Amino acid sequence: MSQGLIRVGIVGYGNIGKGVEKAVVAARDMELSAIFTRRDPALLKPKHSEAQILSIREAEKMVGKIDALALCGSSAADLMTQGPQFAALFNTVDCFDTHAKIPGYLAAVDAVAKNTTAIVSSGWDPGLFSMIRAFSEAVLPDGASYTFWGRGVSQGHSDAIRQIEGVRDAVQYTVPIESAIEAARSSERPELGARQRHLRECYVVTNPGADTEEIESKIKSMPDYFADYDTSVTFIDHDEFVAKHSKMPHGGMVLRSGATGENSQAIEFSLRLGSNPEFTGSVMAAYARAAFRMASEGNFGAKTVFDIPLAYLSEKDRGALIKELL
Amino acid sequence: MSQGLIRVGIVGYGNIGKGVEKAVVAARDMELSAIFTRRDPALLKPKHSEAQILSIREAEKMVGKIDALALCGSSAADLMTQGPQFAALFNTVDCFDTHAKIPGYLAAVDAVAKNTTAIVSSGWDPGLFSMIRAFSEAVLPDGASYTFWGRGVSQGHSDAIRQIEGVRDAVQYTVPIESAIEAARSSERPELGARQRHLRECYVVTNPGADTEEIESKIKSMPDYFADYDTSVTFIDHDEFVAKHSKMPHGGMVLRSGATGENSQAIEFSLRLGSNPEFTGSVMAAYARAAFRMASEGNFGAKTVFDIPLAYLSEKDRGALIKELL
Repeated sequence: MSQGLIRVGIVGYGNIGKGVEKAVVAARDMELSAIFTRRDPALLKPKHSEAQILSIREAEKMVGKIDALALCGSSAADLMTQGPQFAALFNTVDCFDTHAKIPGYLAAVDAVAKNTTAIVSSGWDPGLFSMIRAFSEAVLPDGASYTFWGRGVSQGHSDAIRQIEGVRDAVQYTVPIESAIEAARSSERPELGARQRHLRECYVVTNPGADTEEIESKIKSMPDYFADYDTSVTFIDHDEFVAKHSKMPHGGMVLRSGATGENSQAIEFSLRLGSNPEFTGSVMAAYARAAFRMASEGNFGAKTVFDIPLAYLSEKDRGALIKELL
Repeated sequence: MSQGLIRVGIVGYGNIGKGVEKAVVAARDMELSAIFTRRDPALLKPKHSEAQILSIREAEKMVGKIDALALCGSSAADLMTQGPQFAALFNTVDCFDTHAKIPGYLAAVDAVAKNTTAIVSSGWDPGLFSMIRAFSEAVLPDGASYTFWGRGVSQGHSDAIRQIEGVRDAVQYTVPIESAIEAARSSERPELGARQRHLRECYVVTNPGADTEEIESKIKSMPDYFADYDTSVTFIDHDEFVAKHSKMPHGGMVLRSGATGENSQAIEFSLRLGSNPEFTGSVMAAYARAAFRMASEGNFGAKTVFDIPLAYLSEKDRGALIKELL
């Protein structure tokens, strides 16, 4: 360990895990201690570092050698168990994003984080977007908030298409509708339903002999995922898929359209992300720093982005922040 | 006092003081206790409330009856003395905005805020813009930040024009240059000087017989204020001035143009304000709530927007914030 560096570990080495790795390696005040995987560690080579790869079963041995652990598994499959499991042993940060389950997850993590600090649901939504929604509402209580996502890949919707028989690969872009953004920007505070706010664009590669008409119909009628939206389906070949749809761009915006009496006031926050998992990993790295610092001050338990002073996120000390950025 | 309401006082009843008053009256969890003025209280009638008007010399008598005091005097003339004076007695919030003097002011306030919480430099810049600059830099350390102001009235620049002989009234709009915003949005990270980022538009009413050519020349050559900018001067009559230039709109944006390795990532935050002082007052009211809450927990001293968890700003409790906005 280099003197004074924050020692970060990563659990789960998918796209987000690689994003955290890249951010930690780039940070001047952090070092990457270990990457934990459920796979055979011998088969895994880190993409952005020379970090040691350990079996997830060996994590407990690293207690005292890691200052903050970034949990990069999936919200659906991994975090409900991994969150409480690791928060009992380490300071943690995650981007748990199953919205309806956040309060229960937070409580489960808080129950075990007696001597650790566990930051749940960081990232950009939940995360930065949540922060904007919270302070925008606080400073403009008379108003309406709108969130738009995209244009960007929704992993959940892409996965749903891949479950259909005859589909070899698929990607789904969530696309905000420009006229809805304009309506939200006006001072009219319109009510905008799901179909009015977003389109769904699907690019699908089929197996030989697949019935494309049937696949298109199955996608468009799929409840929850597509039935409530205007959805377009475009069939493409594998080469075009690899060439044009391998990146993971995303973005979105939060708008607050409000007023103080007769005067309109508007707040707008937007992200244009060349790589969604790398940006999410970068946000998680900043919150890993915060988790370590809060734990160092004995401020233990499960925390959200609403509980954390911004100064804890920055590599700079408070004096420099005040001088340079206030 | 209604049970449980946060009792807010206002010191200084100019545009910002009126903005705080309007926000406090609209807030469900606050009530306005008193407005303190240096003028004769009998001559002052509150604009948005029935609040009692007291002489600023009577403030000490209100200790224990006010939960947070919004200091709405000018940074140049009042706050350097009023900030420490009142922070010794009350929880306070201000929008001190003389950037170079913030560290000294903060230290002076902190020295006396032993049993009070004093939030300095809230508002939108410094304030919300500072928060965006801080977290954007923390989550995208490889990048460049840009701040644009306007289109909006700069009180300081308007005052400077009014000092010129022959000028009856004047207003100066700071105008961001669209091509500079576009350059900042690109991933090129250009260096943009003062003249490249903002124009200055001046509307001037003269006294009868004034030499407009000389006034225009004096404005355009004024060091610090105008000489480093492309400045336009338009002479108008008093009626047009009242009709078109009595509102105080403002706004601006903070951009962070960054990258994670080869992938561009961009963050953008903007405000479009129908009334600058009312929005500033609204932000101060939210921070008055935070000051009271932090003091209730014994978290005393001088604080900045970097030190305050966002949950303290909201009228909602933490559980509701997590459920509704995370």
